[in-house]
Amino acid sequence: MSEFDLIARHFCRATPQTILGPGDDGALLRPAPGMELAVTSDMLVAGVHFLPDADPRDLGWKTLAVNLSDLAAMGANPRWALLALSLPTADENWLTRFAEGLFACARTFGVDLVGGDTTSGSLNLCVTALGEIPVGQALRRDGAQAGDDLWISGQPGLAALGLLHLQGKTELPEPWQTLCVKRLSAPQPRIKLGLALRPLAHAAIDISDGLLADLGHIARRSNLKAQVRLNCLPRLPEGVSRSLALEAILSGGDDYELGFAAPPAHRPTLARVATELNLPLWRIGSFEAVGAGETAGEVRLLDPDGQPVAWERRGYEHFVAA
Amino acid sequence: MSEFDLIARHFCRATPQTILGPGDDGALLRPAPGMELAVTSDMLVAGVHFLPDADPRDLGWKTLAVNLSDLAAMGANPRWALLALSLPTADENWLTRFAEGLFACARTFGVDLVGGDTTSGSLNLCVTALGEIPVGQALRRDGAQAGDDLWISGQPGLAALGLLHLQGKTELPEPWQTLCVKRLSAPQPRIKLGLALRPLAHAAIDISDGLLADLGHIARRSNLKAQVRLNCLPRLPEGVSRSLALEAILSGGDDYELGFAAPPAHRPTLARVATELNLPLWRIGSFEAVGAGETAGEVRLLDPDGQPVAWERRGYEHFVAA
Repeated sequence: MSEFDLIARHFCRATPQTILGPGDDGALLRPAPGMELAVTSDMLVAGVHFLPDADPRDLGWKTLAVNLSDLAAMGANPRWALLALSLPTADENWLTRFAEGLFACARTFGVDLVGGDTTSGSLNLCVTALGEIPVGQALRRDGAQAGDDLWISGQPGLAALGLLHLQGKTELPEPWQTLCVKRLSAPQPRIKLGLALRPLAHAAIDISDGLLADLGHIARRSNLKAQVRLNCLPRLPEGVSRSLALEAILSGGDDYELGFAAPPAHRPTLARVATELNLPLWRIGSFEAVGAGETAGEVRLLDPDGQPVAWERRGYEHFVAA
Repeated sequence: MSEFDLIARHFCRATPQTILGPGDDGALLRPAPGMELAVTSDMLVAGVHFLPDADPRDLGWKTLAVNLSDLAAMGANPRWALLALSLPTADENWLTRFAEGLFACARTFGVDLVGGDTTSGSLNLCVTALGEIPVGQALRRDGAQAGDDLWISGQPGLAALGLLHLQGKTELPEPWQTLCVKRLSAPQPRIKLGLALRPLAHAAIDISDGLLADLGHIARRSNLKAQVRLNCLPRLPEGVSRSLALEAILSGGDDYELGFAAPPAHRPTLARVATELNLPLWRIGSFEAVGAGETAGEVRLLDPDGQPVAWERRGYEHFVAA
């Protein structure tokens, strides 16, 4: 099978939103009038971002989902994606399963796969995703304001616990085991939440490297500090040690929930959004002005009395020893 | 050095054409009114697309250039790019040189680097490039018509000879040696030619896998066959065996010249374009209707008497033994 057969067999499907899809030098897209484009690329490497024996169907889903999560965090409506794929061998079964997962995610979120590249090499997956946002309405990281509430969606930390379970480092009881492994293998980009937040949030980010680390990005780019109250965090999984669960919530990556800043006036509306989307939204802290001697971007953990709690590990970073 | 430091130090530069550049969940672009977007991704793998000891500055140039070449082949004006980069180690010297080459290419062609991803892993470079084209004016592969002339720019085959030289498989005399190695290491995307061809060509492609293979893509997608006349090919390098030079021209990849179809009425205009761009354009054959028993996409080599010449190797394909 040549790369051309491989692409034709596995990755060429209808692209109804697209002027010209796969098969030319590039794809041709026509953004709607009055729209800006949000564009993002993510690269997933075997052994770094996923276990080498990961189910290829899950991998197909996740490869696209992590990019759509970035679009969600911008408040964008996802429309197009490109896949660049480096593979050691053209394994027909693997490709069939991978494409199943990829297109399941594409269908779910209304995305056309419009092009990319396929090459031999060690397993490496790179997706670029494009979405539309009405001009000026994007949720950026730099828009948070002092006094904004700090919110988080869903249940961050589950993916990290799922990974620890798969690695044999902890034993999760059911139903957490199934839930955590599922969250790791097939994360749900929070597209609907991102769209709902456009008129409500001042800033947003998706939690991919760890809650504290990612909230720090909003704080730093908004020239603020953030405060997270331990007693406001989402419910911890039962049957797991409290310290492990806390570590997973605060520093675990790979959840793809949204963290965001919104003014207190929007609390009632956000409660309605949570109900409509059937997705919990937790108000876990606030963004505050930086005082004398403080550094923008700092994220402080506070105990129920408002006293700072020491916390070491801040999230996953490449090229830094853990 | 964390990945965030690495990105900040090497890959964050001014993005004057962009609403929001690196540092958020995604970049924000605003295409001009009346424009379509051409989008393309290419992945370059160490040991497959480049020699492991390649100069990182050349590699930075080439990684972007090969994507801009796809935009050139669509007739697009390049504007934005994203870089996803997997690296075994964060080698400061390597990154400095790589970024030098990448941004030299970006400056030359007016491209903003607006985002991407950096991760640990084996060396793998994935660029996505975006360009603009007035609605409906893109040069597609499927627009060639029976009776169109078949044209090729520049001097295809030089990059393949450069590779053979670096691999020690042939010894090129000067000035060909320098020229061929340069063409391999720092190809020139034919952006100006692509823009000039918008009103002139019916179809275009960039020659990345080999002349005959890539012309076959135009023929197949246009439901035609192509004929290439051996005696109309560009001048062969001197001091190289004729068979080797012919193999390089017909089947060598990595040149990033443009092949295109244009009606005979445009011959005088194309001669002017060649002069203005100081770039040779060779009329090497034609596209023809497919006869009974013939297959669309076939590319025939003809000798000076119009008789078919047998030719085996058709270009580089991944996952197929050479």
